[in-house]
Amino acid sequence: MGYSEFLNCNNLDKQMKINKSKIPAEIKKQLENARKSSFVLSNLNVTKKNQILYDLSFKLRASLSEILEENFKDIINAKKLYELGELSLSLFERVKLTESKIEQMAVYCESVAKLTNPNGKIIDATRLDIGLELYKVTCPIGVILMIFESRPDAVIQISSLGLKSGNAIILKGGKEASFSNRILVKLIRETINKISDSSVNSISLVETRVEVNELIKLSQDLDLIIPRGSNQMVQKIQSKSMVPVLGHADGICHVFLDNEGDENKSMSVVLDSKLNYPAVCNSLETLLVHKDFPDSWLASILLKMQESGVELRVCSETKNRLKSFKSLKLKKAVKQDWKTEYIDLIISVKSVDSATEAVMHINNFGSKHTDSIVTENKELAEWFLNAVDSAGVFWNASTRFADGFRYGLGAEVGVSNGKIHARGPVGLDGLVTYKYKLYGNGQGVGEYSKGNREFIHEKINL
Amino acid sequence: MGYSEFLNCNNLDKQMKINKSKIPAEIKKQLENARKSSFVLSNLNVTKKNQILYDLSFKLRASLSEILEENFKDIINAKKLYELGELSLSLFERVKLTESKIEQMAVYCESVAKLTNPNGKIIDATRLDIGLELYKVTCPIGVILMIFESRPDAVIQISSLGLKSGNAIILKGGKEASFSNRILVKLIRETINKISDSSVNSISLVETRVEVNELIKLSQDLDLIIPRGSNQMVQKIQSKSMVPVLGHADGICHVFLDNEGDENKSMSVVLDSKLNYPAVCNSLETLLVHKDFPDSWLASILLKMQESGVELRVCSETKNRLKSFKSLKLKKAVKQDWKTEYIDLIISVKSVDSATEAVMHINNFGSKHTDSIVTENKELAEWFLNAVDSAGVFWNASTRFADGFRYGLGAEVGVSNGKIHARGPVGLDGLVTYKYKLYGNGQGVGEYSKGNREFIHEKINL
Repeated sequence: MGYSEFLNCNNLDKQMKINKSKIPAEIKKQLENARKSSFVLSNLNVTKKNQILYDLSFKLRASLSEILEENFKDIINAKKLYELGELSLSLFERVKLTESKIEQMAVYCESVAKLTNPNGKIIDATRLDIGLELYKVTCPIGVILMIFESRPDAVIQISSLGLKSGNAIILKGGKEASFSNRILVKLIRETINKISDSSVNSISLVETRVEVNELIKLSQDLDLIIPRGSNQMVQKIQSKSMVPVLGHADGICHVFLDNEGDENKSMSVVLDSKLNYPAVCNSLETLLVHKDFPDSWLASILLKMQESGVELRVCSETKNRLKSFKSLKLKKAVKQDWKTEYIDLIISVKSVDSATEAVMHINNFGSKHTDSIVTENKELAEWFLNAVDSAGVFWNASTRFADGFRYGLGAEVGVSNGKIHARGPVGLDGLVTYKYKLYGNGQGVGEYSKGNREFIHEKINL
Repeated sequence: MGYSEFLNCNNLDKQMKINKSKIPAEIKKQLENARKSSFVLSNLNVTKKNQILYDLSFKLRASLSEILEENFKDIINAKKLYELGELSLSLFERVKLTESKIEQMAVYCESVAKLTNPNGKIIDATRLDIGLELYKVTCPIGVILMIFESRPDAVIQISSLGLKSGNAIILKGGKEASFSNRILVKLIRETINKISDSSVNSISLVETRVEVNELIKLSQDLDLIIPRGSNQMVQKIQSKSMVPVLGHADGICHVFLDNEGDENKSMSVVLDSKLNYPAVCNSLETLLVHKDFPDSWLASILLKMQESGVELRVCSETKNRLKSFKSLKLKKAVKQDWKTEYIDLIISVKSVDSATEAVMHINNFGSKHTDSIVTENKELAEWFLNAVDSAGVFWNASTRFADGFRYGLGAEVGVSNGKIHARGPVGLDGLVTYKYKLYGNGQGVGEYSKGNREFIHEKINL
């Protein structure tokens, strides 16, 4: 089916049929090929990996019209889905690529090429004995399944980080961006193939949920799964997978306004945390306010929110302290509000008697994502940062700073609120692990067990 | 039931009834208490944590006869189980405590107290902008379920590491050591209680599989599970848990004898890897031999093994090259042998055409635990260490070196062959994670999004 033919084609089903799932044996083969390529890629030197990234950057610019053409097919499909009510406006809008977005992708590849090689870093080195040296060295993780939503530019971001970190990535993008994802993966694979043909399968694509389910069944042959998407989808994968899942189901972020908080900082931190981009995981959901934080300041903050269209759900104590501020439209918050990620123009507000109560609330109802305190009391702030059990703990700053780019990680593949391995925004460093390399001279442990020799365990200065 | 009464009691069932499971509500409460204590413990300064460890060391020495008395009950029970054929001799032997073992426990606590505090280490620090500083700082993981086998001294090892790293630990020991585990946990809790009573629940015990199953059901409220024990048990927990499981099901370790290997080193590495302690995970299971490695050397190595009672299972090519060495009793290896962890006096031997074939075999059939190459070719060795996808990759050294003590980690809670977080022997550093602390001045991301300000992302020198 040609492009113009496609444009005239009104049969959505027919167009969608291209998303036919591979059979289980094909998925298994794809996974095996990814594994094989990951071994080649992990031993490819960084100059070659960077060369792939620079070539990809060139190829993206050179393939501008081809990419836009494929993306246009997605737009048409997405528009139909949107009109049928099967796709939200925001998802529909995210499908669309433009010349400047493609230029951004190209620039992105170059910037990842410029990042320091995350592999081969010596984390630790110990001389166990004369002629017996132990090195703890970073290395790629292996094969990663990465599930993301409709933004086709994510294909380039994730693949760049995958290539640079030496991991094979199996991508599953949103079906709304099928044509775009496919052309982008094709361009990436062509670029890899030119430089290292046996690494070509280090980037590959699956397109349907059936295929993802098949991969989850084979998950003992994956090393890691990074899902981005709905709470429900992430939880389902967490419950089915046999390997670690890095990501977050919820982002319930808090700001705590302490009674020693500054008026202006309170205003700016709260408004930015809630209003800068309410639809994302690092935006504010529950505002905690010390009982001695001035009521008039709180009223001004909430009024600003209300003027921006935010629905205010407050606890009874908050309602009580604000009763003289008649212009505020306050709804009653219920317990469910404290554990809800609105990702919308809604905020819940709770008064607390102390910083301890605030911390207990956060650790109890939060999602271990990002939480902030506004106070001028340095000691209290430090205590809060230690006591809150979240990946990001901020003092006098918006929760929206929790982001790989803003953290200076170069990029992120996702945000983890798990407790082990990478926490918070996951960049290149979260995509590597380490191995222990031991350099000996024929030694066995026997002579040490017998007490004939003793370990010296001396740090090796590098 | 008093002690002498107990000794006279022949009703094993009656004695075993003390292992009655807590009801689910009690387990839930225990988990909640562990969580609460973990927050207190994580904020306890290191001097106090060390004080607990020194006091515990004192208390262990002072409670010598009490501990031995309780341990004696376990010995009697274990003896009965052994006579009934329900307990192996090695497990039976591991139950027994002695004065010197208790002294070792006391010394152990002191040595953990002396280790550097793993928390509060700044891993990375970035100035995002003037007055906006980001610190990546190590902190405890939270609540860990630790399952181990019959050695009661593991209670002290694991609890010491838990206390020092600031994590709450729920311990599940082998039922053969119930009395010993209980008295040891009692001593630990008494010690903690004296110094920080609200941390007391940071160490607690469960005793039955029913209780473990209950905890696995509640696993979303745990942060990590570290199981040590049978392959089957570890796999079951991996499949049921909603949180990461750190450990290893198998330890299928390889030694590859390259054609450029030295004769003496080949002999010593292989013999130590196999014979030093065949019953453990880091012992050798499959020997890979380059086709050009001298047959006579190989024959000498295998003869030594045979003399030590090792059964030799060899591939047809190996059988062929050794046919002139009549004294060797060679059995035929089948495919299942390559994926079997014997942990016994059995070895499988395979001839390979190249180092690449050896690496492919290891990555295909191994368990990502520890693998060693014997060669004098430095370049090949380095390639092997990079290409083998295991937590430990050794050059001219016995696989038995894969151990927390030998690595100089001070101690280990287990060995992980997972790919993320801690890999290989897991010591104190594997029991901490990190959080991002951001120190601001009221900033929001808005001004950066609008392009009014730019991030500087400058490394902070510490």
